[in-house]
Formats: sequence, C-alpha cells, structure tokens
Amino acid sequence: MELIYGRQPILEVLKAGRRKLNKIWVQDGLSGEMVREILQQAKTKEIPIEWVRQDQLDKRVQGHHQGMVAEGAAVLFHDLSGFLAQLAPTAPAILVALDEIQDPHNVGAILRSAGFFGVAGALVLKWRSAPVGETAARVSSGAIDHVPLLRITNLAQSILDVQAAGFEVIGADMEGESLESHVANPRSMLVMGSEGSGLRRLVRDRCDKLLRIPGSGKVGSLNVGAAAAIFIYEFCRRSSIGRAPVL
Amino acid sequence: MELIYGRQPILEVLKAGRRKLNKIWVQDGLSGEMVREILQQAKTKEIPIEWVRQDQLDKRVQGHHQGMVAEGAAVLFHDLSGFLAQLAPTAPAILVALDEIQDPHNVGAILRSAGFFGVAGALVLKWRSAPVGETAARVSSGAIDHVPLLRITNLAQSILDVQAAGFEVIGADMEGESLESHVANPRSMLVMGSEGSGLRRLVRDRCDKLLRIPGSGKVGSLNVGAAAAIFIYEFCRRSSIGRAPVL
Repeated sequence: MELIYGRQPILEVLKAGRRKLNKIWVQDGLSGEMVREILQQAKTKEIPIEWVRQDQLDKRVQGHHQGMVAEGAAVLFHDLSGFLAQLAPTAPAILVALDEIQDPHNVGAILRSAGFFGVAGALVLKWRSAPVGETAARVSSGAIDHVPLLRITNLAQSILDVQAAGFEVIGADMEGESLESHVANPRSMLVMGSEGSGLRRLVRDRCDKLLRIPGSGKVGSLNVGAAAAIFIYEFCRRSSIGRAPVL
Repeated sequence: MELIYGRQPILEVLKAGRRKLNKIWVQDGLSGEMVREILQQAKTKEIPIEWVRQDQLDKRVQGHHQGMVAEGAAVLFHDLSGFLAQLAPTAPAILVALDEIQDPHNVGAILRSAGFFGVAGALVLKWRSAPVGETAARVSSGAIDHVPLLRITNLAQSILDVQAAGFEVIGADMEGESLESHVANPRSMLVMGSEGSGLRRLVRDRCDKLLRIPGSGKVGSLNVGAAAAIFIYEFCRRSSIGRAPVL
C-alpha cells in the first residue's frame, strides 16, 4: 500500500485504472472542476470518500497534498523479458532506461515525459537509484500508471536483452556525437545516466551509440530530466515528420 | 548575503565571476578533482577557506551540501529596459519569461537550460512566483550567474516592451499550434506559464503566437521544466541547421 497525493496524480491513477485505490481523503469544503471529476470517478469506481480537516491530511503526508490524499496499491512493476516477448517483433517502440538516477524528482519528470510522448516502457533499477515511490509518482503526474515500469537488477545485462530484441541502444553522454546528426532507429532505447557522474562504464560501453545535446551557452550541462525530454521529443518528432526511419 | 552550496554551484559562481564570495566552508578531508579546482580558484581569487566538520555544514544548510558551503553576495538582477537598450537592435537573441512558476526546482531547471543553450536573458517576476533563491540557484547549476536575470513587476507590460524591441513573443500553451510547424523569428521570447494553470489570460492574449509541444502518449502534459527545455532547444536548433531564419 502507498499514499498518493495531489489532485492530478490521484486523477491520473483513477483514469489509468491500473492501480486499485482503497480510499480517498478529501479536505472539507474542497471544490473545483478537477475535484468534481475525481469525486465522480471515485463514485463510479465505488471508492469510499472521507471528508476530513486539513490538519488530518497534513499529518498523513509531508508534501503539498492540495487537499487530497488517496491510499492505493503500490506501483506495479513488470518483468523485462516478459515485456519484450509480448512486443510485436518489428513494431516501432521507444524505451527509456534510468541508470542510477538519484533524485526522485528527476525520475518522476523523466517518466512524465515518457508518458507524454508515448514511450513503450521504462527500465528502472531495483537497487542503487531513487525508488519509484511517492515523490516520483507525484512528479510523474500519473505517468507511472501509464508507462510500463520494467524492474531490472543489472542494466548492462538488460541492454544485451534489449539489443537482442532488435533495439538500438543510445546512451546520453556529453562526449557522444551530436543529436543533430542522428538518424533514429524505429526501435530505440535511450539510456540516461546519474546526475553527478553520467553513465557507468560498462553501461556506456554496451551502448550502440552515444549522443549529446549540442549547446552553446556557458552552463556545461542540462538537468537530466530536461535532457531526457529533449531526447525523447527528438526520437518521436523524427518519426512524425519523416526525416528519419519511422519510430 | 546568501548561502550557496554543492560543488557544481560553487564552482559555477567562481567561474562566472559575477558574484563575490566572502568565504567557503569545506568539510575536513574532502578531495576529488572538482574540489581541487574550487580550492585553486578560491586561492587565485583570495577567498578564505575554512575547514570544518560535516555537522557544522549540516547546521548551516538543510540541503545536500556535498561538503561545501559558500557565503556570497545575493543574486544580481538587471533592469529590462536597460537590458533591451544595450542589445544590438537586430541581433539574434532568445529570451525566456517565467509567468508565476511556483516551484523553485522548476525555476532552477529552466534557468539551467537557458544557460546551456545560451539564452540572452530571463524575465522573472518580482512577486507571485517562486523566489530565485537558494534552491533555484542550486538546481540551476550556476546558470543564475551566467544568464542575466531581468526582474519585472508586470509581465503583460514587459511583453509590450519586448515586442517594441523587435521580439516575437511565443506563449507555451496546450491549445496553441504545434511547435513542429513553427518558423522561428531570430528574436524570440518564450513565455512559460505556471505549473497548475498555465499562462494568465492577459499574458496569453499579448503573445504573438501560442505553441504546444505535440505528444501522443496518455499523460496530458509535460513538466514545465521539460517543456521549456524542448522549446529552447528547438529555437536554437533551428538556427544552427538553417531550417528557419537564424536565431
């Protein structure tokens, strides 16, 4: 069980319908369009609503709950090999792998971008990275209920599995080639490294190609969430305008 | 005076040389390449270093200080009209305006992207938005010392001033045209709205054009920092590959 809070995250869990909610606590007097939509969805799905005072919500979660806290099943994880087996063998698909991203805000932001652009799945490490928990779930704005989360224990090994399934594996790396000149493969996996030190050596070596985002300003690097957004956007854009093989 | 913490932020302040640092506290025994570079820079600039125990740093700041805290002058702000007056009249330039962004993480991430891509200046509201303080400075990874911060009090009015200086003002809006079809003006200002409710009506009405990032996934929106990164990247990219009038 875990707590989900904030209006958008709760609404997204309700809409996605992949995780069961047991109960929603709503602050007395709360109103507004999104609140009405949540109450309507909860009624349809027969989820009990309890109206409470604000301080009772404050006690339950530390973050900015916006008057709503829900209790639901923990985030669902899937198995990579099962996931790859059920993908159509040559269907275009983008995957994203998170290599030891430390900040749950960044994990959440990357999953949200993945959900926005329709990424097929996200590989997340079981250990050694920020847990896909409450913060990541909230920042992802519900994406963790839309993007299949593939829990892995060894990314270097998983890269081999993904390559065997016909994916080109692209590592985000400041010393890579410019993203500008990249011709996207219809089956691609993007690997994003940790905030401080980037990709680990073995992970980096296993990638088919390393790409960097070109920048001409005085700041040396982008936030990992911003960089991931640009990569994913580019991989998708190049399909839609036909500049490169369709993704 | 304010405290700056974390290795990258302190190094960036030293490199930018726009803000004076009075002192740097360093945790006993700290080492590594970036630490050496900071100590070297501090020596050159005659900034006193004090070696302290970790708990003395923990007491000073709440965040993850990575063994280093500095005391320096507060962030510098500039005046918009003075800034516009000293810009070459037709020189290509990109500006970014933040309309009531609430989360300092997002402010910092947007400024970092602006600094990475070489944005000429960032308009920030004096009130009604997250302060450009410690969190934003840290998340920006030093960008607040590289990107001129233009403090304004009325964004709708400032848009008129920027338009009078020959800029096309682009609002980020879910109901705008697709970014795909946009031909960028060499002088453009991007306006990003708040996390919850987007651009305010008058600000929105004053924009020359509204643009959205096209996405085909199930999550309805991007994080504002991710969206800003994609917009700024696109405005810059289109200049470098000559698909559109040079920015």
